[in-house]
Amino acid sequence: MSLVTHRSYTGYPMVADAEVAPGMQFLYGSGEAAALDHQAYNTLVDAVRRRLASEKADPKAMSDRTSAVLTPDATLDQPETLPCGDRPRAVVFDVDETLLLNLGFEYDDATHPGAPYDEAHWLQWEQAGVDRVAAVPGAIAAVNELRTMGVTVVFNTNRSAANAAFTEAALDHAGLGPAKHGETLWLKGDLGSGSGKDSRRQAIAARYCVVAMGGDQLGDFSDLFTGTPQQRRAAVSSPAIRGMWGRFWFVLPNPVYGTALKGGLDDVFPADKRWTPAAGDK
Amino acid sequence: MSLVTHRSYTGYPMVADAEVAPGMQFLYGSGEAAALDHQAYNTLVDAVRRRLASEKADPKAMSDRTSAVLTPDATLDQPETLPCGDRPRAVVFDVDETLLLNLGFEYDDATHPGAPYDEAHWLQWEQAGVDRVAAVPGAIAAVNELRTMGVTVVFNTNRSAANAAFTEAALDHAGLGPAKHGETLWLKGDLGSGSGKDSRRQAIAARYCVVAMGGDQLGDFSDLFTGTPQQRRAAVSSPAIRGMWGRFWFVLPNPVYGTALKGGLDDVFPADKRWTPAAGDK
Repeated sequence: MSLVTHRSYTGYPMVADAEVAPGMQFLYGSGEAAALDHQAYNTLVDAVRRRLASEKADPKAMSDRTSAVLTPDATLDQPETLPCGDRPRAVVFDVDETLLLNLGFEYDDATHPGAPYDEAHWLQWEQAGVDRVAAVPGAIAAVNELRTMGVTVVFNTNRSAANAAFTEAALDHAGLGPAKHGETLWLKGDLGSGSGKDSRRQAIAARYCVVAMGGDQLGDFSDLFTGTPQQRRAAVSSPAIRGMWGRFWFVLPNPVYGTALKGGLDDVFPADKRWTPAAGDK
Repeated sequence: MSLVTHRSYTGYPMVADAEVAPGMQFLYGSGEAAALDHQAYNTLVDAVRRRLASEKADPKAMSDRTSAVLTPDATLDQPETLPCGDRPRAVVFDVDETLLLNLGFEYDDATHPGAPYDEAHWLQWEQAGVDRVAAVPGAIAAVNELRTMGVTVVFNTNRSAANAAFTEAALDHAGLGPAKHGETLWLKGDLGSGSGKDSRRQAIAARYCVVAMGGDQLGDFSDLFTGTPQQRRAAVSSPAIRGMWGRFWFVLPNPVYGTALKGGLDDVFPADKRWTPAAGDK
């Protein structure tokens, strides 16, 4: 970690009675977010259970079923999915703010208002946070139920490959393991990938029939979701894609960080929907 | 509207290039929130379709099925649900940030940073905003599919009874109507209720078998969710309640306002999960 990084952080002294940002109140402190979490995990497990039951009832049709992973040449207009064949069934999950809540790291962020994101602190946290993460509500039960059904749980995260052993330990400590790097744990840098996850998804899909995926960022489902906030929003709702949500792709809420937190007034509020109250009293 | 209210608002001049708060970027501008919306609506419609199919396959069992509405003497530890009998099927939805996005009102909020919530402005908005709301992604298709299945769509909202005609018009304009006050639209003040919704839910459940409910606040499901943030969070995840989410109760994300946005550091970050980076360089 460079001295510059350290200096820039210490410019933001710890505030022990800091106000908690609304996004953190929501994600880490609210019943509403916990309800969204349980909803995502209940519906994911129910969908996988129904699929396995229908495959058991009609084994010949099993090899015709498709994966939740898009083909390498899929587009958002033509989101073709990979064939499954008779590969063993798996569910692919992102890790951070999908299965794990990074409470310690976010506490540090909350108590240093204004401090920018610091990659070196994050890498330190991947090591130090092993026992200061918590499972997302509903995640432990879901992972256990999937494994009981014979479904392999695979983790595809942008945590660093250099810290693989710490992430394996964090998942174990939270009650979500086992995770084994190169088998059921895929990290940033694996396969020469950057933060894009498609190449890792293809490698996972070569071994498994991926019956569902879970994540808090659109990139946890496909790297194709790019562009402006309104373009990403339109793609999610397009006729070709909208049927995936809650059936093959399961979203966890995260208003604290990530690709969702972009945009100025023109990106967020359509011109024809603006309003200000009448100037005088009513 | 009092002069005081007007004065307090004009103390916060409009800022045309205001930064958009992260919660608003998430809810009104992100693909991730749209994906959560579609997920909630897809899974709600799928659950209702499966239930109706199983009732059709076994009509004798239909009267044994229960409602998504708790009994008047239910507790969170013993959340008994009402019997359905042969009442017509309905789904009960909250309105604001469940079916409708209040883009105009929130634009005004975004461009007046620091201004407190102003009830008089909100009441003005209920009238003026009829054509400046938008349907939540997935809501129109869901409402249409439910009606096609023969399920009545009922609205239970804390908009004011005095503005009933404007809310009926707003729902129509957004493509979600019809809504008729006293029949399929229930408002704050109906039945002498305050903002609690249980008395209205009981009245709805006396006429209908409520097969699912949708909302963005825990109070859209039961008035029993009270207490501190951690108490509410624990209740949502309790063994008696956690199975409701995504099966009978369907949650839409809202990190912009409401009961989820409470709590200081002690409410949001458990004492044993806190962390700060090492003081020196790594």
